[in-house]
Amino acid sequence: MSEHLFLKACRNEKTERTPVWVMRQAGRYLPEYRAVRARHDFLTMCKTPELAAEITVQPIDIIGFDAAIIFSDILVVPEAMGLSLKIVESNGPAFDNPVKSGGDIDRLNTNVAGKLEYVYEAVRLTKKLLNGRVPLIGFAGAPFTLAAYMVEGKGSKNFEKIKTLIFKEPALAHKLLEKITASVIEYLKGKIDAECDAIQIFDSWAGVLPPDCYEEFSLNYINRIVSEIKRDKLPVIVFPRGIRNFEIMKSSPCDVVGVDWESDLAKIKDTLGGIKVLQGNMDPVILLSDEKKIRSEAGKVLDKMGRDGGHVFNLGHGILPETPIDNIKALVKFIKEESNKYH
Amino acid sequence: MSEHLFLKACRNEKTERTPVWVMRQAGRYLPEYRAVRARHDFLTMCKTPELAAEITVQPIDIIGFDAAIIFSDILVVPEAMGLSLKIVESNGPAFDNPVKSGGDIDRLNTNVAGKLEYVYEAVRLTKKLLNGRVPLIGFAGAPFTLAAYMVEGKGSKNFEKIKTLIFKEPALAHKLLEKITASVIEYLKGKIDAECDAIQIFDSWAGVLPPDCYEEFSLNYINRIVSEIKRDKLPVIVFPRGIRNFEIMKSSPCDVVGVDWESDLAKIKDTLGGIKVLQGNMDPVILLSDEKKIRSEAGKVLDKMGRDGGHVFNLGHGILPETPIDNIKALVKFIKEESNKYH
Repeated sequence: MSEHLFLKACRNEKTERTPVWVMRQAGRYLPEYRAVRARHDFLTMCKTPELAAEITVQPIDIIGFDAAIIFSDILVVPEAMGLSLKIVESNGPAFDNPVKSGGDIDRLNTNVAGKLEYVYEAVRLTKKLLNGRVPLIGFAGAPFTLAAYMVEGKGSKNFEKIKTLIFKEPALAHKLLEKITASVIEYLKGKIDAECDAIQIFDSWAGVLPPDCYEEFSLNYINRIVSEIKRDKLPVIVFPRGIRNFEIMKSSPCDVVGVDWESDLAKIKDTLGGIKVLQGNMDPVILLSDEKKIRSEAGKVLDKMGRDGGHVFNLGHGILPETPIDNIKALVKFIKEESNKYH
Repeated sequence: MSEHLFLKACRNEKTERTPVWVMRQAGRYLPEYRAVRARHDFLTMCKTPELAAEITVQPIDIIGFDAAIIFSDILVVPEAMGLSLKIVESNGPAFDNPVKSGGDIDRLNTNVAGKLEYVYEAVRLTKKLLNGRVPLIGFAGAPFTLAAYMVEGKGSKNFEKIKTLIFKEPALAHKLLEKITASVIEYLKGKIDAECDAIQIFDSWAGVLPPDCYEEFSLNYINRIVSEIKRDKLPVIVFPRGIRNFEIMKSSPCDVVGVDWESDLAKIKDTLGGIKVLQGNMDPVILLSDEKKIRSEAGKVLDKMGRDGGHVFNLGHGILPETPIDNIKALVKFIKEESNKYH
């Protein structure tokens, strides 16, 4: 498996073409996903290994991506730490008992592995279903992103609570981030033991921190996790969504940096090319247009990366639920058929 | 008036200290604003010149900013073009009849000045109340930002509708943007005739466009407006919120570029310093902390701009409604007392 196209590309080894997968590929745009979802709520799907494995494999069978990503949610870790999680897909996730004080932080549990056995079991089942066809990506939220949810209690427009914690009580913020980091390390080690082939760390709210704060309150913790979980030939991808300064990713021990669609991939390649493999970054809304536009925009992404390799094709954010199946199929076909010209 | 501190700074002339105002300074954080708001709805306040003038002047009297900005809303222009506007402050604005087709675009009216006389009257009244104390900024939304509202019908998470129009039917998108541009030019000329001392163009949704599209679908229209309204000694500020590539602002005919808090002001100064005056960019959430933190963070902003001038102090986004009055007063006091060291 370690010689699979996707894993080789993540390690910046020569490949015959560019691999392609998309964030949220096991999701609502697929009728087969919606059929399962109609019978089970979101968290039940996460917590039932047979369902999670089925959903994870759907887009491999139906669309033909070059990697699978285990169906789960980044918030299962805070739940295992002791917060009460509710996920309503239309409203986003919420915690009934957000972190409001130092005492709440003290009460958080960091021995999470025992409570996340259902994820490891889903990974093992998925690996059986995939049967070596494509690698399986395991993932976790970055500590800052998880802290943001845990303190806000839900998504937020301005993230006043977590940022005020950071601005007014940085020591307490660090205490919370330390506990989350320990939990994420334990969690990801369990996923790797269950034989995930690569790991992605989603820093979905990276852009919420002013640039001066990002390293201290987010990237340092991500880097510690990457160093702790790093093993030979296991690529680690970091997706710092919304950051402006990619320069700071140079010193991260990660292999691959995810690039959001708001960034100019050509400029990020100028900064990180040859140092980090880049993953991304087509705007998901392009997939709501037509095949001609999709091919032309995907071609622009390939052009920006050029012939130097070091690229995993992906969207710059999750695939939208209203994406027509034929459009995502057309994208994958295009990358599979045309990207060899760049290699 | 043209020799006022704020206007001189906007024109990159030498000043004795850095001027300071903040976006949404005539807003909900002020008890005096909430008292007026308790008796009138938001649009009534916009459309009643006496109320708009009163609210505009409140933060000058109470906080002591170096510039006033006329109380209004960017969506009064689409309303004058024929859309039916509703503003519920907690939900954001919405149009009952969003633009859905070429026919809808054809029906839009561009002779807006006659319908916006209430804004010009508010400007004239405000100028009387200000009585030369500080300059008055007039403003408009950038055509792309207005088009986004007009097509989506309201704020949006992913802006699928306006972006799909741009991706699938670029000619139709340009037709809409042309009509909005003509309306904004007429509107701003009326504001300048009513004696606004400076103009700010808010491209609040600039970050919603992939970087490859920004110039064609937004900046070119902004630049055309700036060229059309430009007059001797009247500064024009452009605030392209969320853009990553400030390089392209070099060729804009604007005087001042607003910088959001997500950007690193030091890096933007490297790109635009000496070419454009910069306005910004402290994170508004800093104002929810305490005086010590506010002084230290405002000091960092001044440090980043250094001793070369060319800076208007502002937040990197609107002041938050929950900002304590003492905190914004502390910020303004700090800039007034400390920024002379940089000049």
